[in-house]
Amino acid sequence: MYDFKSIKLDKNQSQHLYIQLYKKIKELILQGHLMEEERLLPVRKMAKTLEVNNVTVVKAYEILEKEGLVYKRIGSGTYIAKELPQELNNEDDISKHQASVKNQLMEQGHVKVEKNMINFASATPSAELFPVEDFKRVLNEVLDRDKGHAFDYQEGKGYYPLRSVLNKYIKHYGIEADTESIQIISGAQQGIDIISKALINYGDYVVIESPSYTGAMAAFHSRGAKIIDIPLQKDGLDLETLEKKIKIYKPRFIYVMPNFQNPTGISYSISKKKEILNICKRHNIYIVEDDYLSDLDFNSNDSTTLKKLDNHEIVIYVKSFSKIFMPGLRLGFLVIPSKLHHNLLMAKHTTDISTSGLLQRAFELYLNKGIWQKHLAYMEEQYKERFLLMEESINQYFPKYVDCQLPLGGVNFWLKLPKGFSSNKLYERAVKENVIFAPGNLFFMGNQDEGYFRLSIASVNPSEIKYGIKLLGNLIGEYIDNKEELRKDITIKPIL
Amino acid sequence: MYDFKSIKLDKNQSQHLYIQLYKKIKELILQGHLMEEERLLPVRKMAKTLEVNNVTVVKAYEILEKEGLVYKRIGSGTYIAKELPQELNNEDDISKHQASVKNQLMEQGHVKVEKNMINFASATPSAELFPVEDFKRVLNEVLDRDKGHAFDYQEGKGYYPLRSVLNKYIKHYGIEADTESIQIISGAQQGIDIISKALINYGDYVVIESPSYTGAMAAFHSRGAKIIDIPLQKDGLDLETLEKKIKIYKPRFIYVMPNFQNPTGISYSISKKKEILNICKRHNIYIVEDDYLSDLDFNSNDSTTLKKLDNHEIVIYVKSFSKIFMPGLRLGFLVIPSKLHHNLLMAKHTTDISTSGLLQRAFELYLNKGIWQKHLAYMEEQYKERFLLMEESINQYFPKYVDCQLPLGGVNFWLKLPKGFSSNKLYERAVKENVIFAPGNLFFMGNQDEGYFRLSIASVNPSEIKYGIKLLGNLIGEYIDNKEELRKDITIKPIL
Repeated sequence: MYDFKSIKLDKNQSQHLYIQLYKKIKELILQGHLMEEERLLPVRKMAKTLEVNNVTVVKAYEILEKEGLVYKRIGSGTYIAKELPQELNNEDDISKHQASVKNQLMEQGHVKVEKNMINFASATPSAELFPVEDFKRVLNEVLDRDKGHAFDYQEGKGYYPLRSVLNKYIKHYGIEADTESIQIISGAQQGIDIISKALINYGDYVVIESPSYTGAMAAFHSRGAKIIDIPLQKDGLDLETLEKKIKIYKPRFIYVMPNFQNPTGISYSISKKKEILNICKRHNIYIVEDDYLSDLDFNSNDSTTLKKLDNHEIVIYVKSFSKIFMPGLRLGFLVIPSKLHHNLLMAKHTTDISTSGLLQRAFELYLNKGIWQKHLAYMEEQYKERFLLMEESINQYFPKYVDCQLPLGGVNFWLKLPKGFSSNKLYERAVKENVIFAPGNLFFMGNQDEGYFRLSIASVNPSEIKYGIKLLGNLIGEYIDNKEELRKDITIKPIL
Repeated sequence: MYDFKSIKLDKNQSQHLYIQLYKKIKELILQGHLMEEERLLPVRKMAKTLEVNNVTVVKAYEILEKEGLVYKRIGSGTYIAKELPQELNNEDDISKHQASVKNQLMEQGHVKVEKNMINFASATPSAELFPVEDFKRVLNEVLDRDKGHAFDYQEGKGYYPLRSVLNKYIKHYGIEADTESIQIISGAQQGIDIISKALINYGDYVVIESPSYTGAMAAFHSRGAKIIDIPLQKDGLDLETLEKKIKIYKPRFIYVMPNFQNPTGISYSISKKKEILNICKRHNIYIVEDDYLSDLDFNSNDSTTLKKLDNHEIVIYVKSFSKIFMPGLRLGFLVIPSKLHHNLLMAKHTTDISTSGLLQRAFELYLNKGIWQKHLAYMEEQYKERFLLMEESINQYFPKYVDCQLPLGGVNFWLKLPKGFSSNKLYERAVKENVIFAPGNLFFMGNQDEGYFRLSIASVNPSEIKYGIKLLGNLIGEYIDNKEELRKDITIKPIL
């Protein structure tokens, strides 16, 4: 039962107490802290607990009832509604989705990205880095070899030779699996979608990192999941909170990016990686590991995946190639615990039957001929140059009161303005100067603007980085210098 | 409140009455006729209504309670459980999914289809019909023209020039839309999946034809929809039942295939098409029209789509190219009422962000250069030859007690064995002789085997048709002649 004592009302605030109480309870319901069919305290008891008038409680309960959030059972009390009213759900859906799309559009560089813009917003490589000629060659080779069969339905799990070569490929990363454990997907977003279909029933709980990838939140939300977000620390999730929440909510799974997390760029310590596996094993909970970037390890030398450490088949591994290859191919793969093979295959079928056979066949050839390894080395080199330049430029041009825990690899840098300053406002200024980035609110469940922002090196070439960061540094200075009253509160504190 | 009088128990059956009653109520719950939190009749009243002993009812309620399907409130009665027990749901999921996958696998010719088999099961064209060389040419043209951009993320709605040429294309079919109403999808199954995401909330009702496409049922089911299936008549859905069910259940939409329906091959009469639009308009309900084949109109000259007749923006039109082009491309499109643009785009994003840009660009060129029209004419010719040969062969070789309403177009023929005979048993015999088809139970919600089966001409070449149908005709004869006791009941009656 929820401890209503923790509701704090403020008698000094101008807002009526019953409105404050109504809002607090509504929030608790929408966030899933108060569950369907849970009984609210009886009026007198609630009034006593919160040290308010009975009338305050009656009025608050009345509004909640009108909105369909609670209902009364005669002679028994007031209960949380079984189903939240349609309108509320929808509103919520739409704002979530809007955030998600905004983010995705930005990631894809479709929104407001003009040709001459410096784009720190997109986390996907720019088109000039794509190995077009090499891929064209394997495409044609496949067409000449397989003819019509290249356009036939592919096996739901994926083209067998591709799964087989991927299985060999992940052994280099220490992941031992069999070919049947590999499920081809049309990009990581689809992977997350079919995992959600296979595992989440309406009303189930899911744990995510805060902040996290918006596309994942949208997919979980779309399945009717209740999302518990747990703040990230410098070396990964706060494990005490994690275990506490797992005990309370029994989530279906936790969704994490343990290497160069998106958006923060942080990497979990090896001890946290191991301990998360222990906790989830103890409580019998799956881990969805989204590995979008562990290949780009510039400084850590420890981008071990959870899947590599997984001795109990509890990790579902999601691998995207969008960040180091070509996002428009829409290809990726999952490594799945054997218990889940069947369910995930079913979910894939319901989703789109199978992934394009032509593209799978071409990619298989690409991997098998070793062109992939060549390309990966090339991308590492390209990205490393940008990465070092970025570190250097941030150190040189950003005011010291901008917090940044420099990442050990990957493509994302996560920064924070001093308290009281908005990254959305900074964004508005920057757009006018033809520089864009991803405001931090996009990555939080509550969409809150706490001054965080993400800079990515994927879509900017080296010549733009120094210029762009210098410009952005100046804009931050101007923005903050204009607010003398806030400047005096600025303290330099760690970002996470 | 459910009218329990309609429960019929059979005192002459060997099964105990309380088991019969338990099974009937369980069925009513699983089919959604008894809703969560609905109260069952009190024991004595139920016993009186059904003219059985009190003990019979008590025992039945006890089993239901043990299985978690109902629960007791002290002093108040027995109620349907709020959530069905996990295991039941799962079982149900799995059997649905299994049926779905079985079907899909068969459609794709992956299951038990050996090289030398005559495949009446698959409804997708065989690889030798694919325009590989033409498509290879446009692929290379796109790569030379667009270079890396061909592999970039595509706009979520789809590549604009492709949407634009599709908009022109559908005008030939009398569909007036604007380019913004067109949403590119990775195949029809994905279209159905994202429509489900955008429209179905957990527990919503959806109306389908019975029989129908299993992949659609699986997608609706996966969203937690309650599915109402309405039997097809010779000229389309039974409209009286449709309106009655709409009034009772207020479904989110009805899902129909008004031309050459899958699996039955029937086409709706023009008057039924119009009346369905009127009914749905009257009750403010969307229609999802799955147009997988209206292009292949051999005899009807009236394969008007509902979308063409839709003056009130209530039809969501789903167009697949898998049946007349190349299933492995995974391309199709939706035409969407303007009110739903936003929601469907969001759902597409959550599903896979965007469809492969390379394939969209190549297909755009293919359409724009008029190669598509050439290919369509070629496919019509190929299919028409098979279609006529199929009609002739069925008339010549099938025993007269096999019912068949010959279709007016499309690729599917729907047949029925005499009462008491199983199409699954026929399938087992046919497989041994290297002939396969789709048993009818795959297309029914309840998976019931009532002797229906589907023969498709998509994957058989003309030389196989006559031989295959003759063989199948003989097998049917043998199967049925062996069961003298059932043969005497055989009457020839219309299939629908």
